[in-house]
Amino acid sequence: MSKYTVAVVGATGVVGQEIIKTLEQRKFPVKELVCLTSARSEGTRIEFNGKYSISRILDENSFEGVDYALFSAGGSISEKFAPIAVKAGAVVIDNTSHFRMDPSVPLVVPEVNAQAVKKHKGIIANPNCSTAQMVLALKPLHDAAKIKRVVISTYQSVSGAGKEAIKELESQTRHNLQGKPSEAKQFTKDIAFNVIPHIDVFEDNGYTKEEMKMILETQKILEDDTIKLTATTVRVPVFIGHSEALNVELSEELPIEKVRDLLRNMPGVVVMDNPSKNEYPTPKLLAGRDETFVGRIRKDISNPKAIDMWVVSDNLRKGAALNAVQIAEELIK
Amino acid sequence: MSKYTVAVVGATGVVGQEIIKTLEQRKFPVKELVCLTSARSEGTRIEFNGKYSISRILDENSFEGVDYALFSAGGSISEKFAPIAVKAGAVVIDNTSHFRMDPSVPLVVPEVNAQAVKKHKGIIANPNCSTAQMVLALKPLHDAAKIKRVVISTYQSVSGAGKEAIKELESQTRHNLQGKPSEAKQFTKDIAFNVIPHIDVFEDNGYTKEEMKMILETQKILEDDTIKLTATTVRVPVFIGHSEALNVELSEELPIEKVRDLLRNMPGVVVMDNPSKNEYPTPKLLAGRDETFVGRIRKDISNPKAIDMWVVSDNLRKGAALNAVQIAEELIK
Repeated sequence: MSKYTVAVVGATGVVGQEIIKTLEQRKFPVKELVCLTSARSEGTRIEFNGKYSISRILDENSFEGVDYALFSAGGSISEKFAPIAVKAGAVVIDNTSHFRMDPSVPLVVPEVNAQAVKKHKGIIANPNCSTAQMVLALKPLHDAAKIKRVVISTYQSVSGAGKEAIKELESQTRHNLQGKPSEAKQFTKDIAFNVIPHIDVFEDNGYTKEEMKMILETQKILEDDTIKLTATTVRVPVFIGHSEALNVELSEELPIEKVRDLLRNMPGVVVMDNPSKNEYPTPKLLAGRDETFVGRIRKDISNPKAIDMWVVSDNLRKGAALNAVQIAEELIK
Repeated sequence: MSKYTVAVVGATGVVGQEIIKTLEQRKFPVKELVCLTSARSEGTRIEFNGKYSISRILDENSFEGVDYALFSAGGSISEKFAPIAVKAGAVVIDNTSHFRMDPSVPLVVPEVNAQAVKKHKGIIANPNCSTAQMVLALKPLHDAAKIKRVVISTYQSVSGAGKEAIKELESQTRHNLQGKPSEAKQFTKDIAFNVIPHIDVFEDNGYTKEEMKMILETQKILEDDTIKLTATTVRVPVFIGHSEALNVELSEELPIEKVRDLLRNMPGVVVMDNPSKNEYPTPKLLAGRDETFVGRIRKDISNPKAIDMWVVSDNLRKGAALNAVQIAEELIK
């Protein structure tokens, strides 16, 4: 088996760290790991496969000899350096939103549209965390009875907003328990003991960019822009794990047991749905897991062709690092 | 102005305490306050209008001379004692779910269906907390362009589950911040840094009773059982204040400014909706307020006749105590 030089851009960030862990756990054939960061984090020792790698400053010469470059350092970094990496001969797997809607860039969740990987021209995009887990649950239903419309409400953890956001939830919570007020820096409002219906920036149509990502990326990954979607994305005081309440209207009525079977047979999905035993997914108890968990599966009593369900996944794993590494695995198949 | 003898059943509970505070704040003409509790809480000193009332054990003779009895001590207590109170000459305002769907019992949110109060035969029901705030936001839209269907996802605070649940969120959170595991007693799973898609018991159709309450009570309060609804109700680690993401399909397309005006003109509702200034309601910052706040109002891009919005209210105030006292105010008008 040949071995590859893999660069991780944003190697000390929450997702970068998770990518490195995932490369090791899944035994991706790494010859050399190149950890790239901003000047602020230069020189950080990063353990990988029992050895240490010292992070280097990302610059225009960082990608010489790199086979795969996994980017997770913000859209502007990807915008500038992904083309440089491609020119140097690397294939880029980009975890930011920058290239996702570019028609020449495949947007891939391997269990759903692995075939799209082949069309890449140097860059492959990793979807938004809340989109990745959702399309896993939508795909088998769409194949069986074409989805007409999805109404989405999310319950998204703070780790989706990065390391400082995790610290802010912790420190605000401590302050509040001591009866002290908290200061909001990473979010527009307090996140401790609160929920905030605002992720990413607002667009002119009243939706946030996060909501529009879920809508547009889903159409692109499922390769069907006739699917209608609406979303309300909400930040909740959970450290890791995104949850989603989905109402899915199909083009025909499916028996609920058929829906469960379709989901059970979907790679990457685990059906956890036994209300009589209080079995349904919750993020705290499933953080660290690779699978996407689906529960509360039921026929929508307001519409016989619709299904309600509850989808939970680790936003740092399937929502980011795991999916990126799975794309790299597709590339070396 | 005549003055009334008012009994509060469950006077030491979270809602009971809030009812007593609300009676005082709104200057309800109370001649005597009768605080009724279980044996466990007998003898508790409860301050009211600058004096103290000593709680007494609820029994079959508790309602002599009582004009209005506000119940908030669980369905089985209401089932047994509400008819006794009525027989003794009191009018019962019941905050439990026990009588809500009884066709002979009005279910009232005064801003929405005050006229229903007049039909009472001794008992008037207060709706479920998450229903009360929702119907305030739905009513003006339904009057303007008949609602066809609502898809509901809730973000409900722990105070809706009572005093012990509030303590559990606090103690679990403290434990977690000290790196200790937490034990779930009041909820089926940890609530600290988690979300739980399960409120009240499961029914055979896969919905929880909480979800079915929202569906059936809304039809009853809006006096229209052709409105279709589906709901996923979720507990979140917030102390006070319920939030709801609502997708409302109308029978005709309304301009979004018209929708905002309708909501602005609805008594009890405050529109808080200015995304460019990060203005939208969140529960932590609005706990203690009487109004129901609506933000994130936008045209659903998946359906031109539908509206997305975000509704937040203090579940102990409009969702319980305030609404109960408002019903009493209707009775003495």
